[in-house]
Amino acid sequence: MRAVVLLSGGLDSATVLALAREQRRECYALSLRYGQRHAIELKAATRVAAALGAKRHEIVDIDLSRFGGSALTDVSIAVPEQPREDGAIPVTYVPARNTIMLSIALGWAEVLDAGEIHFGANAVDYSGYPDCRPDYVAAFERMAALATKAGVEGRPIRVRAPIIGMAKAQIIREGLRLGVDYSITVSCYQADDGGRACGRCDACRIRRAGFAAAGVADPTRYR
Amino acid sequence: MRAVVLLSGGLDSATVLALAREQRRECYALSLRYGQRHAIELKAATRVAAALGAKRHEIVDIDLSRFGGSALTDVSIAVPEQPREDGAIPVTYVPARNTIMLSIALGWAEVLDAGEIHFGANAVDYSGYPDCRPDYVAAFERMAALATKAGVEGRPIRVRAPIIGMAKAQIIREGLRLGVDYSITVSCYQADDGGRACGRCDACRIRRAGFAAAGVADPTRYR
Repeated sequence: MRAVVLLSGGLDSATVLALAREQRRECYALSLRYGQRHAIELKAATRVAAALGAKRHEIVDIDLSRFGGSALTDVSIAVPEQPREDGAIPVTYVPARNTIMLSIALGWAEVLDAGEIHFGANAVDYSGYPDCRPDYVAAFERMAALATKAGVEGRPIRVRAPIIGMAKAQIIREGLRLGVDYSITVSCYQADDGGRACGRCDACRIRRAGFAAAGVADPTRYR
Repeated sequence: MRAVVLLSGGLDSATVLALAREQRRECYALSLRYGQRHAIELKAATRVAAALGAKRHEIVDIDLSRFGGSALTDVSIAVPEQPREDGAIPVTYVPARNTIMLSIALGWAEVLDAGEIHFGANAVDYSGYPDCRPDYVAAFERMAALATKAGVEGRPIRVRAPIIGMAKAQIIREGLRLGVDYSITVSCYQADDGGRACGRCDACRIRRAGFAAAGVADPTRYR
């Protein structure tokens, strides 16, 4: 079966691609160049797609920086380097980004006659983004069934979020079991042009803690 | 209140913008250059946004023609010039296009702190596209409430589809009441570079029948 796999270049989506390949899916990897400050992650996505045997990898351009409203798309908003204590959604949240990515994946999936979209959302060791939670994924899937010709014709496209309930350490162990080379992935929100991580942003902190909890060496290249 | 209004350049979305202005919304018009063969409609959208007092008009680029799968994004698939008799969804359906448009509108709405998205879907005099029906719009709205910071914080963005249940003649009468100049709109799927309509595609046939049923002169420029 064909599947569209959202691929950011980070640790989670690389693991999702490896899991989809283990399930013998023919994988069409999709990345978004949306005006993110860490566009270097797209180079990582290209490496990951090749290393893990994606059939094809597409990078779609859509400039969300024209709207701004996020530290990831507006360089005048600093990326926080301390965790929030109040549980509020951090400024690195990009309004509707995951919905836009899933929607584009939905369109491509329908054209490919793919039965599934694989999405590396995680709601355990994460930054509290609303569009990473199981209820959201289920609501997107219900909407998608009504949106598409495939759905109307009784072949709704399913949205798989296989790591949504896993701790970061568990994700890493799954990936290592499947031979994922995490040294080629980039999670950092402010990675430099060489893909080296800051070690201080949310994405870096969660990732580093994951390797520590998994009890394996952290292959991340810090600057 | 601020509202993001999806504006294609056609008759329906122009009417929706006029209705939103009547309701004193501050309107942010959004159009998509998605690789449509009738990209000339975007010139019409720009005229309509100015004529009907949109506060701002953004045209976002996203190339869906790389995926193809529709007569509107793949010039090798002909636009049908006869209505389908079997009720099947026609080849002018663009997979997930309305979901992609609404998703981008959702992101912009959240950044603007807009409470509403206005969407010119119609499920009466239409081509049978799944992503024009009331159930779909309701499902998108439910998904959007879970997707966004605004939704989590108790300010879900609503999706208004004010003409979804109107016959085309009724839409036209509403627009004329509000002073919409339909001569500047373009509905045709294969309008020429001057915006002149073919008179034969689905969009032209439904539009022409609407003016006839409304009992008003059709201002469309046919070639």
